[in-house]
Amino acid sequence: MNPHSPRLRLDGATLLAQLRQLGDLGRDPAGGRTRLALSDADKAGRDLLVSWMRDLDLEVRIDQIGNIFGTLRAASDDGGQRPLMIGSHIDTVVRAGAFDGCYGVLAGLAVARAFRAAGASPARSITVAAWTNEEGARYQPDMMGSLVHAGGLPLADALAVTGDDGTRLGAELERIGYAGDLAIGAIVPHEYLELHIEQGPVLDDEGIAIGAVERLQGISWQQIAIEGAANHAGTTPLGRRADAGWAAAAIIMALRELASGSGTTLATVGSLRLEPDVINIIPGSAALTVDLRDPDDGRLADAERWLAAKLADIASQEGVAISAEPLVRLAPVAFSAELVAAIEEAAGALGVSHRRMVSGAGHDAQMIARIAPAAMIFVPSRAGVSHSPAEHTDDAHLLSGAALLLEVVRRRLTEEIQP
Amino acid sequence: MNPHSPRLRLDGATLLAQLRQLGDLGRDPAGGRTRLALSDADKAGRDLLVSWMRDLDLEVRIDQIGNIFGTLRAASDDGGQRPLMIGSHIDTVVRAGAFDGCYGVLAGLAVARAFRAAGASPARSITVAAWTNEEGARYQPDMMGSLVHAGGLPLADALAVTGDDGTRLGAELERIGYAGDLAIGAIVPHEYLELHIEQGPVLDDEGIAIGAVERLQGISWQQIAIEGAANHAGTTPLGRRADAGWAAAAIIMALRELASGSGTTLATVGSLRLEPDVINIIPGSAALTVDLRDPDDGRLADAERWLAAKLADIASQEGVAISAEPLVRLAPVAFSAELVAAIEEAAGALGVSHRRMVSGAGHDAQMIARIAPAAMIFVPSRAGVSHSPAEHTDDAHLLSGAALLLEVVRRRLTEEIQP
Repeated sequence: MNPHSPRLRLDGATLLAQLRQLGDLGRDPAGGRTRLALSDADKAGRDLLVSWMRDLDLEVRIDQIGNIFGTLRAASDDGGQRPLMIGSHIDTVVRAGAFDGCYGVLAGLAVARAFRAAGASPARSITVAAWTNEEGARYQPDMMGSLVHAGGLPLADALAVTGDDGTRLGAELERIGYAGDLAIGAIVPHEYLELHIEQGPVLDDEGIAIGAVERLQGISWQQIAIEGAANHAGTTPLGRRADAGWAAAAIIMALRELASGSGTTLATVGSLRLEPDVINIIPGSAALTVDLRDPDDGRLADAERWLAAKLADIASQEGVAISAEPLVRLAPVAFSAELVAAIEEAAGALGVSHRRMVSGAGHDAQMIARIAPAAMIFVPSRAGVSHSPAEHTDDAHLLSGAALLLEVVRRRLTEEIQP
Repeated sequence: MNPHSPRLRLDGATLLAQLRQLGDLGRDPAGGRTRLALSDADKAGRDLLVSWMRDLDLEVRIDQIGNIFGTLRAASDDGGQRPLMIGSHIDTVVRAGAFDGCYGVLAGLAVARAFRAAGASPARSITVAAWTNEEGARYQPDMMGSLVHAGGLPLADALAVTGDDGTRLGAELERIGYAGDLAIGAIVPHEYLELHIEQGPVLDDEGIAIGAVERLQGISWQQIAIEGAANHAGTTPLGRRADAGWAAAAIIMALRELASGSGTTLATVGSLRLEPDVINIIPGSAALTVDLRDPDDGRLADAERWLAAKLADIASQEGVAISAEPLVRLAPVAFSAELVAAIEEAAGALGVSHRRMVSGAGHDAQMIARIAPAAMIFVPSRAGVSHSPAEHTDDAHLLSGAALLLEVVRRRLTEEIQP
């Protein structure tokens, strides 16, 4: 720690108050809050965020996909500097908690506030980003704003997306006044940090305050179709059955065996439907989904191959036809080793418990990692519950995570701080 | 064979023509025919049947639940005689085949026709019965007319049943003109015979012409509810899962194991639904049905006990709650040993291949077995397909079965035939 650097202090009260104030927008009568991307409630959240950015005298820019950037310009920045970027999102799923996404954006503001309060200029500009439509609850794909920013989806394609409610994304962006003029990708981060609740139970289980996220799991989604023969449950002998429901069950059991044996691969069948779905008719067809995840791309590919072989075995055993269609394939993302180490060092300096970990969920950071060194910081979420009004993180954990973020930034940007 | 008995000859051409004519009523544009109980199409079928009964000079009586009885009165019958009854039904499921039910009723007419053509009076009156609402496709329960006749369901309760289409059974019975005045149960059979297509693959597989049905399986239906915990597929470690979908799959696999080990028990999961049924969420709850069947009541009860223990095992293994609700429990029905032997003897006399068998499906005969000695005769149905426009039985098998029915009746009623 540089003894000459000015004192940067986290204003915890303002951070918690802002989390509460943003969380009150879009209150859902059924519980939680619903601020679907580009809805009126999302516009209200954006307006509030922009007003807070202006209060901190940040330079606010909106790009063509509606991503919001608020920059605290370093004294050394003549406009050409790549900023340290702190980002996440403020859109929500239906009946969401208050912290998913919002916490990372508002903690970014807290970092800027600390510099403003100390009257200090960072060694490099700091940009707080709020990415459009991270949740994908109204328009697919999810993580859209950061994906477009990183060059993974053409702007025109994103603007043309039709939502579940029949609306066109581009039209809704215009309607709420957030179709900005900043060119896509104009602000390239020097480094990117994202602070987020874990949305899993690991930190809460282990009683650890901070997760230094070193990688993000790879994801493989498949749709499986099974064709057997619908027949009378009372008159069809065992040897004459081609039971699509039994084949589906055998796949579920096989996936559990795969996950148990692997130790790193997660396997889930979330959706399963039978036809005709009648008590006394052997299922003639079944449709199910498979969600495979692994932090290692080779092991994920192994799991996919193992499943393909197992599907063939089960099909021949039961005399049914099984086909698999790939839906989504995301390779694992490795975050910056240097940033992960910096997070660990800062946590050590602050004396908070920490561990390295893998993110099971998708985050904007995985898109930005395509164009800049990136890493994430997790704080515990109670019992791992998220995307639910029951989502909860203790104030102490929220403040500890934000203080750590500030410490990481301080360590990277105070070498040349101008008092 | 009694050399003095008059020659009773099956008029095969008329039987096949009547099957075709009745099968043409209620033609469904989507294929097959749809004559749901007490619909306009069912009324048309009833009217045609009654006209054919009158053509044979049978005494036609309609009872209060709409069961139709056509009696060929024996010379010896002063009105107090219990008849030999031949029955089945003419209502259908949606998009049915032409033979399910109709075959047994029209073969009964063929028996009466043989006596009329020979100018012979049977030793005992013969009544051809068409039971109301066997299928249960519009009003539940199924096998309703024979159930009411046998005293298993009060008339008032049956008349008060509301159909899937919101209609009241009693009102529809009045509307189509088949709310008769004959008291329920007035005609008690001396013996009861029902000829039916197998609706299973056994005879077709084995190339056997006749099944002498000695019993009907017992049926146990249960609704199973599983409560686990919905959680993120990417962030919930294996040890933290309470996966209702996995528990459902484990139940399906266990039931297959039960059926494989037993040799007589059939077990089917026909319906299964997951909540929330989303690709990346571990199922939080599942609802499934279990259909257990066994010809032996003790073995059926064993299967129920085995399943209950297995449910407890699976619940504790996965950390979910499993509850089972009984829906239907029908004990196996044993048919009359004397009638089954008579069917075998007649088949032997005619030189047609035959075997004893168990019926996997429900039939009116199981209700009438409560009040009279009863048995059934099966003929092959191709690949066991039924309740489908693809239901098929070769003409040769249809005629062979009807000839056998006639032979059984001849052997039981010609001792005292009056030429």
